[in-house]
Amino acid sequence: MHIELITTGTELLLGNTLNTHALWIGRRLFEEGFRLQGQTSVPDGDAIRRVLEETFPRTEAILCTGGLGPTCDDITREIAARLYGLPLQVNAEVEAALRAYFASRGREPDADTLRQALVPEGCQVLPNPNGTAPGLYFPAQKGLPHLFLMPGPPREMRPMFQDHVLPILRQWRTEAPPHCVKFKCTGLGESEVVRRIEPMLKEIEGLEVGYRLGDGDLELRFFGPESATEEARRICRETLGTYLFDEGDRLLEEVLVDVLRKNGLIVSTAESCTGGMIADRITDVPGASEVFAGGVVVYSNELKQKLLGVPAATLEAHGAVSSETAQAMAEGCLAMSASDMAISVTGIAGPGGGTEEKPVGTAWLGLAVKGKPTVTRRIMYPGTRDRFKLLVSQTALDYLRREALGLELP
Amino acid sequence: MHIELITTGTELLLGNTLNTHALWIGRRLFEEGFRLQGQTSVPDGDAIRRVLEETFPRTEAILCTGGLGPTCDDITREIAARLYGLPLQVNAEVEAALRAYFASRGREPDADTLRQALVPEGCQVLPNPNGTAPGLYFPAQKGLPHLFLMPGPPREMRPMFQDHVLPILRQWRTEAPPHCVKFKCTGLGESEVVRRIEPMLKEIEGLEVGYRLGDGDLELRFFGPESATEEARRICRETLGTYLFDEGDRLLEEVLVDVLRKNGLIVSTAESCTGGMIADRITDVPGASEVFAGGVVVYSNELKQKLLGVPAATLEAHGAVSSETAQAMAEGCLAMSASDMAISVTGIAGPGGGTEEKPVGTAWLGLAVKGKPTVTRRIMYPGTRDRFKLLVSQTALDYLRREALGLELP
Repeated sequence: MHIELITTGTELLLGNTLNTHALWIGRRLFEEGFRLQGQTSVPDGDAIRRVLEETFPRTEAILCTGGLGPTCDDITREIAARLYGLPLQVNAEVEAALRAYFASRGREPDADTLRQALVPEGCQVLPNPNGTAPGLYFPAQKGLPHLFLMPGPPREMRPMFQDHVLPILRQWRTEAPPHCVKFKCTGLGESEVVRRIEPMLKEIEGLEVGYRLGDGDLELRFFGPESATEEARRICRETLGTYLFDEGDRLLEEVLVDVLRKNGLIVSTAESCTGGMIADRITDVPGASEVFAGGVVVYSNELKQKLLGVPAATLEAHGAVSSETAQAMAEGCLAMSASDMAISVTGIAGPGGGTEEKPVGTAWLGLAVKGKPTVTRRIMYPGTRDRFKLLVSQTALDYLRREALGLELP
Repeated sequence: MHIELITTGTELLLGNTLNTHALWIGRRLFEEGFRLQGQTSVPDGDAIRRVLEETFPRTEAILCTGGLGPTCDDITREIAARLYGLPLQVNAEVEAALRAYFASRGREPDADTLRQALVPEGCQVLPNPNGTAPGLYFPAQKGLPHLFLMPGPPREMRPMFQDHVLPILRQWRTEAPPHCVKFKCTGLGESEVVRRIEPMLKEIEGLEVGYRLGDGDLELRFFGPESATEEARRICRETLGTYLFDEGDRLLEEVLVDVLRKNGLIVSTAESCTGGMIADRITDVPGASEVFAGGVVVYSNELKQKLLGVPAATLEAHGAVSSETAQAMAEGCLAMSASDMAISVTGIAGPGGGTEEKPVGTAWLGLAVKGKPTVTRRIMYPGTRDRFKLLVSQTALDYLRREALGLELP
């Protein structure tokens, strides 16, 4: 089925708004067994007419976002009705909902707002519980394709697409949607993952593979007949093993908080070069307070001594970025908090502060666990400051996950 | 001048890659006095032919990204050459650069890689210092528009656009680019900013206004003749005053670190509900170590007492989310670190933990400054946990900025 997306909005073309619709809709369609064949952005106003006319002949369904609101350049509804030759009629139900919405805010809708209650004859209203403008579905007719009009804001468009557009699209699917297997992987570079699995995946008939680099992790998606995706699942599990941290969509911090909760474990953090990012990521997860006691951000050597009891002699003999300091930080953090394990990081984020012996991008991590000897590791992530903080925090979260699951550190 | 953008890449349509080109290019063009009139995404392969043919008649210049690499579906160069009727020739300079690039990695380029050295007759090579595929400029001819082919990866495309495409486009500008004035604003909602300035801005002839909601801040951009942008600048300064934190593009944390450095001030942080995000944002800025001593993330009450000396009686009498606890946290943080001021936050990020008296979204902030009485404020940001953390950290950074500049807290 040939499906295209048209996104309208001048703000998309003048550099004010990032267009996330193509990614989100393309992804959802693909997982349902469809393929988005094209996407076009046009300014508000009359340009939508030209693009619709151009797109009609080659498509079976068009998804369109934006241009349904109350301002004078929101004219997608009117233009589409004219192109399909369908008269606009006031929909009593939509109008009542609009009046109720405004009444609850002590206001009356004006004439432009009430345009949102106009529905072309024979079209289906797509409910919008998160905004005032409903969506519209024009069934295919007179040689024209199916057309879906949806509002522009993602928080209105996404539920409408999921709950009202997809169910209609699914009717026209000629075969079952492909099976889908997803993994999240961390601790191995993309090229290393590809090197390990691609030769085997290439042998599997009917398998499609999608990689997506996330914030410090790599997502793998496999589509195809069940036998193919199951074979891909087996290969991934065997070849990537504990580098896989989820079979699904979750972030590493979500998996970590979940594992800690299930095992009744509490963690704490002692950060220097990551500057609070590890704690920040753990506390992004709802319910983190059950598994996270707290942490310190000890940027100065003075605070490393004062809060974590790192001996001045250690700092002097080995420097702040060293295995010895990382160990003292992790052990001090464990002692200070009522937690089961503590992770420490100390490194050189750059751009300044690097030396020949310890270049920018060097970090030492320490993992202290109650009743076990402390382990330290040196890692290297040269690159930008942002990227360094992200990847070091990712490694720290992964060490905590591995410890909570009883796995070896890499 | 009618300019459109074509982005090629199957990954843009199947949900693997977010397309950031339209935002970035649209923004740069607008600042230079051009307007992007449309953007289209197509899969790799032959679809680019159809879109080019459709776009030719209505455009004066086409910007195209992707499809220049070595794989078999990278065929934009070949298709464009055929549409313009220009034979492809090996460019000796590009080939030598390709061979040198591969030699430095101990490899030899294969035949597909060497396709990147093919240049249509009469076209101009656009250098790509960040990758192997150079860009190409097809001058307008035979009734066809100007065409620019650029590589897909942002880190290759952006410098090429800036250094080689824009200088060519600027030749065709019929008038001087509009003046541009930019502000960053924080602490006021978008609708409140609009309410305060729009009535006055509407009176200014020739002024164009762009708003963009950033991560906790609002960017205002004004374009037009100098007299108009200067009038807008005056109105903004008068009406928004100290809510404006930058005349430019900087993030609040960048402005804060800059102001602290200039005033020789050192700060520290005591976070509960923001979970380390304030420290994380400060330490995103290169050179933060000069102005940031460190901080604590005291999620548990035990750590609030142990690290910051918050009295158990205070926690018991007023609760962890209270003016009294925020004050004790800030003062404890100031005492613990050798800093000039300390900010504390304690609140309820949700989704759980809210009560009728202290609903989800409530936070108390404390600002302790050497030799001054401590100030506390209650703020309310109901909404998602992510958004709450972001907006509370934004307010905390803004309080530090205000204090460093000797301004009142709002």
